[in-house]
Amino acid sequence: MERISTGIKGLDKMLEGGLIPGRTYLVKGGPGTGKTTLTIQFLTEGVKNGEDVLYVTLEESLKTLKEDMSKLGFNLDDPKFDAIDATPVTDKAHNIFAGTFYETFGKSFEKLTSAIQDKVKSKHYSRVAIDPLTMLKLTVKDELDYRTTFIGFLKSLSELGATVILTSDLKTSDVEEYLVSGVIELKTLEVNGRLLRGIMIRKFRGSSFDEQIRPYRITTGGIKVYNNENIFVE
Amino acid sequence: MERISTGIKGLDKMLEGGLIPGRTYLVKGGPGTGKTTLTIQFLTEGVKNGEDVLYVTLEESLKTLKEDMSKLGFNLDDPKFDAIDATPVTDKAHNIFAGTFYETFGKSFEKLTSAIQDKVKSKHYSRVAIDPLTMLKLTVKDELDYRTTFIGFLKSLSELGATVILTSDLKTSDVEEYLVSGVIELKTLEVNGRLLRGIMIRKFRGSSFDEQIRPYRITTGGIKVYNNENIFVE
Amino acid sequence: MERISTGIKGLDKMLEGGLIPGRTYLVKGGPGTGKTTLTIQFLTEGVKNGEDVLYVTLEESLKTLKEDMSKLGFNLDDPKFDAIDATPVTDKAHNIFAGTFYETFGKSFEKLTSAIQDKVKSKHYSRVAIDPLTMLKLTVKDELDYRTTFIGFLKSLSELGATVILTSDLKTSDVEEYLVSGVIELKTLEVNGRLLRGIMIRKFRGSSFDEQIRPYRITTGGIKVYNNENIFVE
Amino acid sequence: MERISTGIKGLDKMLEGGLIPGRTYLVKGGPGTGKTTLTIQFLTEGVKNGEDVLYVTLEESLKTLKEDMSKLGFNLDDPKFDAIDATPVTDKAHNIFAGTFYETFGKSFEKLTSAIQDKVKSKHYSRVAIDPLTMLKLTVKDELDYRTTFIGFLKSLSELGATVILTSDLKTSDVEEYLVSGVIELKTLEVNGRLLRGIMIRKFRGSSFDEQIRPYRITTGGIKVYNNENIFVE
Amino acid sequence: MERISTGIKGLDKMLEGGLIPGRTYLVKGGPGTGKTTLTIQFLTEGVKNGEDVLYVTLEESLKTLKEDMSKLGFNLDDPKFDAIDATPVTDKAHNIFAGTFYETFGKSFEKLTSAIQDKVKSKHYSRVAIDPLTMLKLTVKDELDYRTTFIGFLKSLSELGATVILTSDLKTSDVEEYLVSGVIELKTLEVNGRLLRGIMIRKFRGSSFDEQIRPYRITTGGIKVYNNENIFVE
Amino acid sequence: MERISTGIKGLDKMLEGGLIPGRTYLVKGGPGTGKTTLTIQFLTEGVKNGEDVLYVTLEESLKTLKEDMSKLGFNLDDPKFDAIDATPVTDKAHNIFAGTFYETFGKSFEKLTSAIQDKVKSKHYSRVAIDPLTMLKLTVKDELDYRTTFIGFLKSLSELGATVILTSDLKTSDVEEYLVSGVIELKTLEVNGRLLRGIMIRKFRGSSFDEQIRPYRITTGGIKVYNNENIFVE
Repeated sequence: MERISTGIKGLDKMLEGGLIPGRTYLVKGGPGTGKTTLTIQFLTEGVKNGEDVLYVTLEESLKTLKEDMSKLGFNLDDPKFDAIDATPVTDKAHNIFAGTFYETFGKSFEKLTSAIQDKVKSKHYSRVAIDPLTMLKLTVKDELDYRTTFIGFLKSLSELGATVILTSDLKTSDVEEYLVSGVIELKTLEVNGRLLRGIMIRKFRGSSFDEQIRPYRITTGGIKVYNNENIFVE
Repeated sequence: MERISTGIKGLDKMLEGGLIPGRTYLVKGGPGTGKTTLTIQFLTEGVKNGEDVLYVTLEESLKTLKEDMSKLGFNLDDPKFDAIDATPVTDKAHNIFAGTFYETFGKSFEKLTSAIQDKVKSKHYSRVAIDPLTMLKLTVKDELDYRTTFIGFLKSLSELGATVILTSDLKTSDVEEYLVSGVIELKTLEVNGRLLRGIMIRKFRGSSFDEQIRPYRITTGGIKVYNNENIFVE
Repeated sequence: MERISTGIKGLDKMLEGGLIPGRTYLVKGGPGTGKTTLTIQFLTEGVKNGEDVLYVTLEESLKTLKEDMSKLGFNLDDPKFDAIDATPVTDKAHNIFAGTFYETFGKSFEKLTSAIQDKVKSKHYSRVAIDPLTMLKLTVKDELDYRTTFIGFLKSLSELGATVILTSDLKTSDVEEYLVSGVIELKTLEVNGRLLRGIMIRKFRGSSFDEQIRPYRITTGGIKVYNNENIFVE
Repeated sequence: MERISTGIKGLDKMLEGGLIPGRTYLVKGGPGTGKTTLTIQFLTEGVKNGEDVLYVTLEESLKTLKEDMSKLGFNLDDPKFDAIDATPVTDKAHNIFAGTFYETFGKSFEKLTSAIQDKVKSKHYSRVAIDPLTMLKLTVKDELDYRTTFIGFLKSLSELGATVILTSDLKTSDVEEYLVSGVIELKTLEVNGRLLRGIMIRKFRGSSFDEQIRPYRITTGGIKVYNNENIFVE
Repeated sequence: MERISTGIKGLDKMLEGGLIPGRTYLVKGGPGTGKTTLTIQFLTEGVKNGEDVLYVTLEESLKTLKEDMSKLGFNLDDPKFDAIDATPVTDKAHNIFAGTFYETFGKSFEKLTSAIQDKVKSKHYSRVAIDPLTMLKLTVKDELDYRTTFIGFLKSLSELGATVILTSDLKTSDVEEYLVSGVIELKTLEVNGRLLRGIMIRKFRGSSFDEQIRPYRITTGGIKVYNNENIFVE
Repeated sequence: MERISTGIKGLDKMLEGGLIPGRTYLVKGGPGTGKTTLTIQFLTEGVKNGEDVLYVTLEESLKTLKEDMSKLGFNLDDPKFDAIDATPVTDKAHNIFAGTFYETFGKSFEKLTSAIQDKVKSKHYSRVAIDPLTMLKLTVKDELDYRTTFIGFLKSLSELGATVILTSDLKTSDVEEYLVSGVIELKTLEVNGRLLRGIMIRKFRGSSFDEQIRPYRITTGGIKVYNNENIFVE
């Protein structure tokens, strides 16, 4: 079966070759665990291969993201790297929501969906990332509404034919975790006053995988996964 | 007393021969624990014996399920393997809900019940699986409504005369666990940064059973239960 | 003071002779802990002594119960063993609720009470069991309603002059536990991946009792309590 | 300062002589911890000294209480031992509420207060016990209502000039604990599968006290407190 | 910078000289931890220095408080020790609320504020204590109302020019803890069945302080803090 | 990339040079952990370099703050140090809210925003601090309202072009933590009765950082971070 590289060697090995193309995956982890870095590595890996990719940012503005990622050696100004700025704090000119965002939850999801569909009309994207879902969830009044809307959103994403990565800052998730084809978790463990970073695959439909938590680092070249090491040594 | 094989030798031994035919069982476990694989093994075991079986999928689309299962050596295109695609994210043409799903909870349960009854008119199924119940529960507004509707659903299932497996992603369950004849739990234990998989039987009416947690693996040939091993060794 | 045997020797010893006749007791324990088996042992002990007994089943249908219990050597077809099938999933012909059950909570309790009173008109029962209370509690909208109705139900039970056993699947209980004369708890402890079963008496008005948790097994002859052993050995 | 014996030597020693007369105390503990036994010991100690005492029972009926206590050597038929049966499950003839109890919370408290005041008209009671408060709290709709009503109830009790013991089955308490002059807690500790009983004084206004948890037993002669022993030995 | 003694030497040392005059402090601790004793020590220390002080009691009546404190050697009948009885259970003649207390929360706070202001008209108090805030919080319907009203109350207290101690029985606090200049906590630790008492300073604006938990005792001479000892010795 | 010193050497080293200018950071920590001291060090570091800075105080009044900080050697009367007193307990004359504060949440945020904008008209501030956000959050009725309003507030802050520090007393935070460029946490660990203070960086966009918890002290010269030490030694 064909696999698609995440851009992170150690993670590809944990996944026994990479992600399965055309499916949707969830990357979970608290603030500062490197979800955005992982996502950018995944997308720029596509760019390197000549693929068109699409990034939707909901927390960090596109401007600071580009600054931050250039320091890690990722050039987000490549014409093959398309982006939608859906952050609530950015100035209006470059933002799809232009000050109306988060007024009503339903509308936000609609706008986001149509912004993606506009992009999709002109090109085919092999890789798409929504980073993170959190903001959408935090501004919805009713959990049930969120689930129904999210299911619809996921449906429209699945029709793109792309491999999709969704990220989430939240510890608890329900429909997101159940409906995607795989879940990758970035964890920060506090052991005796030391911070340890660990990555684990919680779910990966259609493949066996490395079931252990592996150490990872956020380096100047992006995330590195040490898939031959254990996080605890006795 | 007659027993029916789960298709997993080690699990049959834990059950002292297998499940008791004609009853309903619950398989619990978080995302990625192998509930679907276990379910498919149970059903294809029936197909091997020349039985007609019915699979109702509520999370993973029938299309990707067939791809994934064929890699494990399970052929879901056998004419004796019938399936209903009740997933919310699948394209409309192959789905019983055709875009109206999850609009109202009560209707969803009704549609699901009548889709099953349509299938049942033409054939007798010896084995039936609903995988998982979770989606139905997550879209209901009122817990009490769910319980009453679920009791009715269980009643109609029990009238099929089949051995039924229900699965659930959720940690907490109430009526499901109380009203079924048995509960099998798939657990993922995180011990010192290592993931250990364990299977245990929580409840099995009408039989004694192996009360210990036993290790299991999701292999390229499906789930293997090591019923002679303990999950912890000191 | 007169005592009445529970049908389980080890438990009688823990109770310093058995239960005190004419009072109501609660047996608590999760799914699969053997509440029904304990209850049937208690009732068939009465049958052996020539007493009339009454069993009300609310979870497992009378039909499967009889099958399961006959394997443990308990004959529920004895004319001295009367039963009421109050399960929600049974076919209508043999069930007191005939499809209307659980429509409203108050009515269910009334029907149950009057079904018991009908039985009581013809015979005196020395032993009565309601197995379990759980279903009634899970379908009530308001906790306060439940408490008031339950107090009334308990009152009508206490007027029967029988020794009564109530069972419950739920971890938390309030009025049930406070108003009965004793509480027996069946526990499943998960220690280092091993399941240990333990029975303990939480409360026993009018008598001293063995205050320790004792190991028990569900054997082919029913529950066996090892009242001379400790559940932990160091 | 004058002290009043609790009827339990070891507890008196923990209290440095006994309770301070004319104040109200709370005895907390789960079902089966011996709250009623402690209360009866406190009251019969008064009877021995020729005092009139009043017992209000809200959980166990007066009839079974008398049976149970006579086995421990406590004669509740002494003319100096007055009692009010305020249990919800007793037959109507001997009960102050006569079937109307728990209909509305406010009325229950009123009836209880006026039943006590009726008793008080004819005699002066040096010791009064309300055993337990729990039932009153469990049937109230609004926590704030309970607090206000309870404060009024406590006020009318404090005007009796008696030493008052209130008991509670509940783990959490607020106004009860803050407004009384002392809190005695009966605990059941589960350590390595063994039940250990311990008594401790949480609060005792106007006196220093033994701050340690001390072991106690419920013996055939009532509660015995081992105030020179520690509950844990290393 | 000027400091004001708490009347407890060990605590003064932990505070590096005492409290900073003219500010408001919170003393937290469960029932029986000695909050009232600490408060009285703080106030009588002022009386010894010829200062006028004001004590507002909300839980224990002034009458029993005077009895209890005289045993610890504190004379509350000194003309320099003024007190307001704001307890809900006291007889009406000596109480500012005279039976109307706790009817509505807002009014209670108003009455309390105006009772304090009446006192303040005639004298200047250098030290003021409100013991405890708990009752006011427990009778309020809406947490937001409480916060707004409490902020107003704190403002009027801060205008008195006195050093103010507020006490609280509650484990959780929010605005109280954030808006005061310091928080002192009295803790009861249960270690292996032994009760250990510890005092710690959680917050002290404008000064450094001893950050460790120190043991304390409630002796016949009041609270003693052992600021050179550690609560745990290995 | 340019960095801006926090005024605390050890913290600058943990941040690999300091904060990234023009972004917004969150400093979290309970009462008494030194959030205000850290904030003042950050601002006065700017003053030392000839920058204009703005401090908004929401808990401690400007008056007591100046007293307290002068003792630590920080002169808040420097003309380059501007401040807004937005505390609820301060007397009206020096406060922007003048007694109307916290009446409605929305208005408070508006007033705060316009007070900041008034200041900004005359000068450019390179550093701004809001200390803490807590009060604003605690007086809002609806969590969703808070999120929407907070997002707007953050937007207006981000348009100032300053490096902004927000502080929070609360353990839980959501949008605050997700939308800022970095999170610094001040922790108090209670280990065996000893208080240990530790600082950690939870998130820092655009830079790698020291991922360990490091010990810190609140000294007479302000906060000192020991970035070469570990908080636990074995």
